[in-house]
Amino acid sequence: MFRFKTLMLALILGLCSNMLHAANVILIIGDGMDDHQISIARNYLKGAQGRLLLDDMPLRAAVQILTVEDSTEHKPVYVADSANTATTLATGVVTSRGRISTAAGSDEDLPTIAELASAAGLRSGIVTSASVTDATPAAFAAHVSLRLCENPNKMLDINYRGIPLGNCKQDLKAAGGPGSIAEQLAASSLDILLGGGSKHFSPEIEGGNISVAEAAQANGFTLVHNLEQLHNAPADARLLGLFAPGTLPVRLQGEGQRSAEAAKPSLLNRLHPYLGSVSYPDVMRCEANPQAEGIPTLKAMTEVALEYLSRDNPTGFFLMVESASIDKQAHERKPCGSIGEMEQLEEVLATAMAFAENQPDTLILVTADHAQAAQLVPDGSMYKDYNIPVYSPGMVARIVTPEGAIMGVNYATNNYPYEEHTGANVPLFGNSEAQAYVPAFIQQSDLFNIMRDYLGLKPEVELRD
Amino acid sequence: MFRFKTLMLALILGLCSNMLHAANVILIIGDGMDDHQISIARNYLKGAQGRLLLDDMPLRAAVQILTVEDSTEHKPVYVADSANTATTLATGVVTSRGRISTAAGSDEDLPTIAELASAAGLRSGIVTSASVTDATPAAFAAHVSLRLCENPNKMLDINYRGIPLGNCKQDLKAAGGPGSIAEQLAASSLDILLGGGSKHFSPEIEGGNISVAEAAQANGFTLVHNLEQLHNAPADARLLGLFAPGTLPVRLQGEGQRSAEAAKPSLLNRLHPYLGSVSYPDVMRCEANPQAEGIPTLKAMTEVALEYLSRDNPTGFFLMVESASIDKQAHERKPCGSIGEMEQLEEVLATAMAFAENQPDTLILVTADHAQAAQLVPDGSMYKDYNIPVYSPGMVARIVTPEGAIMGVNYATNNYPYEEHTGANVPLFGNSEAQAYVPAFIQQSDLFNIMRDYLGLKPEVELRD
Ligand SMILES: [Zn+2]
Ligand SMILES: [Zn+2]
Repeated sequence: MFRFKTLMLALILGLCSNMLHAANVILIIGDGMDDHQISIARNYLKGAQGRLLLDDMPLRAAVQILTVEDSTEHKPVYVADSANTATTLATGVVTSRGRISTAAGSDEDLPTIAELASAAGLRSGIVTSASVTDATPAAFAAHVSLRLCENPNKMLDINYRGIPLGNCKQDLKAAGGPGSIAEQLAASSLDILLGGGSKHFSPEIEGGNISVAEAAQANGFTLVHNLEQLHNAPADARLLGLFAPGTLPVRLQGEGQRSAEAAKPSLLNRLHPYLGSVSYPDVMRCEANPQAEGIPTLKAMTEVALEYLSRDNPTGFFLMVESASIDKQAHERKPCGSIGEMEQLEEVLATAMAFAENQPDTLILVTADHAQAAQLVPDGSMYKDYNIPVYSPGMVARIVTPEGAIMGVNYATNNYPYEEHTGANVPLFGNSEAQAYVPAFIQQSDLFNIMRDYLGLKPEVELRD
Repeated sequence: MFRFKTLMLALILGLCSNMLHAANVILIIGDGMDDHQISIARNYLKGAQGRLLLDDMPLRAAVQILTVEDSTEHKPVYVADSANTATTLATGVVTSRGRISTAAGSDEDLPTIAELASAAGLRSGIVTSASVTDATPAAFAAHVSLRLCENPNKMLDINYRGIPLGNCKQDLKAAGGPGSIAEQLAASSLDILLGGGSKHFSPEIEGGNISVAEAAQANGFTLVHNLEQLHNAPADARLLGLFAPGTLPVRLQGEGQRSAEAAKPSLLNRLHPYLGSVSYPDVMRCEANPQAEGIPTLKAMTEVALEYLSRDNPTGFFLMVESASIDKQAHERKPCGSIGEMEQLEEVLATAMAFAENQPDTLILVTADHAQAAQLVPDGSMYKDYNIPVYSPGMVARIVTPEGAIMGVNYATNNYPYEEHTGANVPLFGNSEAQAYVPAFIQQSDLFNIMRDYLGLKPEVELRD
C-alpha cells in the first residue's frame, strides 16, 4: 500500500525534470515475438532468402528476461508471463508473474514510463491489438496485483469453472486502492489509448453509478468505436478507442480456420514406435480472416496515435504499440494467426520509421516480452530415410509458403488447450538513434532506463524506502 | 565431377592473392547453439541474472540459415543439418542437407576457406569435440556428396538395420574422386587437426595397403592420441590428434546419466485430459561425466592449435573450433550434456580473446550452424492453478540450478530416439575486429565472404562455369 506516496514522488520528480529537447520514444512490443516467430514470419512473408523490415534495422541486440517469485526471497523463475515482463519494460523493476506494475512481495505500486512522461508534461499513448486492459498495455498505466482484475466486476471473485484464480482485494477503492485496470485507465492521464476491450468499460465503476466508459469521458476522453470515428475525432481530443469487445480479430487464419493438428499413428504404431505408419496433418495455406474486416489495423491506430501525440507538441511523447496476438495465436497453436500479426508489427515499424525520418529525435525500440512455444521444424523428419514413423508428440502445422515450399511449425510444450511461454532471451531492434544507447546484450529492465533517459525524465525516481 | 578444375583454380588464385598483413580468423561454431541453448546454459552456469562471456562480446547479430533441395530447382528447405550449414560457412555456398562442401544438384566440389588459406600460404587448423570426420569439421577440408562417408569402408554400402542411406560412389578414387572424408583429411594441407574419430583412420585406404592414419603420416602429420603426446609434440610438426574412437566424451551429464523423461499421467488422465493426475520426472542435478577424465578439453586443444598456428607465422591463419555436442546431446535429450559443452565453448572463447589481445589482427566469430530442439519451459505449467494435469507430450528435464531454482527443459520435436533440428535464425557474436565487418543481420554464406576478405584471400574464386 505504498501507492500514493511513490506516485506523488514520481509526479514531483517528473515535474522537476529538465527538458532539454523534445524527444520521442516509440516502443513496439511483439508479444511472444522470439526468433522462431520471426523466422516463421520471414519465411512466409518474404521467403527463406528474404528480409523483414526488422532485419534491416541498424541495431539488433538480445534481451535477458527476468522474473522472480512473489516472495521476499525473490528466487529466479526462468519463464515469464506478459504481466511481469510488461511491468519490467514499463517500470524498470523485475517482478513476479501476473503482476501489473506492482512489486513482488511488497505489492508496492511502481511508477510507469507513461506516467512519468505525463507528469513531466510529455504526451503518452498506448496502442494494442489486445484489450487495452490486457497485461501488456495495462502495465504502462495501471497498478494491480493480478492481471485478471480487468474491470470492476473482476476484482474479488475471479474463477475458472469454479477454481479460484486470485483477487485484487487490496486494489479496491474501498481499500484505498485505485480500482480495476479499466477504472485506472479511465482515470489515467494518457493522451491516447486504442485497442480492444470495450466489454471492460461497460460495468459500473466501484462506488459509483456511471460506467467505466462514462468515467473516462468525465476524465476528458473522447470515445471512438470504429475506424470512421477514429479518423473524424477532434484534433485536440484525448482519445479512447475500443474497437472490439475483447482482443481485436487477427488478420490471417489457417484455411478452414485450422490450427496445428496431431499426427495420426496407425494402430500398429501405437503398439510399438518402430512399427506401423503415421499420417501427417494435411498441408494448409493461410487466408484472410473475414472477422478482421472493418477493424482498424495496428498501423491505422499507430498513424492516428502518432498524429495526436506529435501535433504542436514541444515536449515530446512516449508511445507503446503492442502486436498482442503473435503470442495469443501461438498459445492457440495458430501459426497463420501469428504470421499475420507479425506482418501488422512490420507495418507499425514502417510507420514509426517514416515518422522518425521527419522527427530525428525519435528513439524506436522493437522487442518481445518473452519467448513462445512455436518451433520451426523440418517438414519430413531428418530421420525419414530410416523408414520408421517419425512425428511430433504435439501439434504440427504444415504451411504452404508463397514460394511453394512447406514449412513445419510444432507446438508441444504441453497437452493443455493453451501452450506455455518459453524462457529464451529475446531479440531487440532499434533505429539509428538506439545505436548510441543499447549494447549487444541487455537486461529487460535496462530498456526502461534507456527510454527514461532518452526522454529526459531523470533524475531517477526512488521506488523503495 | 568438376573437382580438379575448381580446386586448381582456387589454388592458383589463392597463391596470387595479395597479402597485405598477417591476419588471423578464429571461427568458433557451437553446433545447435541457438538462443534456447544459450539461455539454458546462462541460467545454469551464471544464474538468471548472470552473463556468459558470449553476452559480453561487443558484436551480436543474427544469422539467416539457408538450405536448398538437392535438385536443379533449389527450392528452399526451412530446416538445416550440420553438413549443409558447415558447407555454407566453409565455402559461402548454400547447399542441400547431408552434403560436405559439394554443390546441390551438380555435386561440384566447393573450395573451402581452409583450403584457400593453405593455398595462399596461410596456416589452417580444425579443432572439434566430434570425430574430425564429422560433418562440421569435414566441410572445412573435404568434399563428398554424403556426410556418412567418413572412412574408406563407408563409401558404398551405408545402411541402418538394412535400410540403405545412400553412398558416395562418385567420390571413390576409382571413379576419379578424392575418397572418403578421413582419406581427404589425411591428404589435406591442414596444419593442425584435433578431435575424436580414431576409428575412421584405422581402415586401409582405397587402393592401398596402408591405413588412413599411415597415409596421414606419409603426408607429414605427426599423430597424437592423448594429452601428454599433444603437449610434447615437436614444435614444427603438423598435428593430427585423435583422442577417442568417435565423439569425445562430454563434460557434464545428468545425475545417474538421466536424460529428459516423459511425465506419467494417471490412468484416469489417459481417459480424459482434464481428469486424473500426472507425475512429473524427478528433479536432477548435473554432474561430471567420469568418461571425460583424461580427454583433452576443447580449451586445451585450442591452446595448442593457436600456439602451432601462430608460432613464427608472418602470413596468418584460419582456425575453426567446434563445440559439437551442444547439438549431439540435445538430439539425445540431455540438457546437462549440452550445458557442459556450452561451458567448453565459453572456455575456448576466453582462450581466443586472450590470444587476440596480443595479436590485434585477429577476427573472432562465434556462431551456431542451426537451431535445435531444446526449449526452456516453465517448471510448473503457467496453467497449474486450473487444477488440470498439464504436462509436455514430449520429454522434460527438471534441472536444479546452482542458484537453487528449477529449470524445465522440453524436447518434443518428435517421438524418435533423436530430436530434430529447428529452423530459427541463430546468433552470431564477434570481437571488436568483427564490428567493422558484420551487420546486424546476415546470411550464413556472407560469413564466408567476411572471413575470406579479412584474410586477404581475394580475388573471388569463381566456382561455377
Ligand atoms: Zn502469452
Ligand atoms: Zn545435429
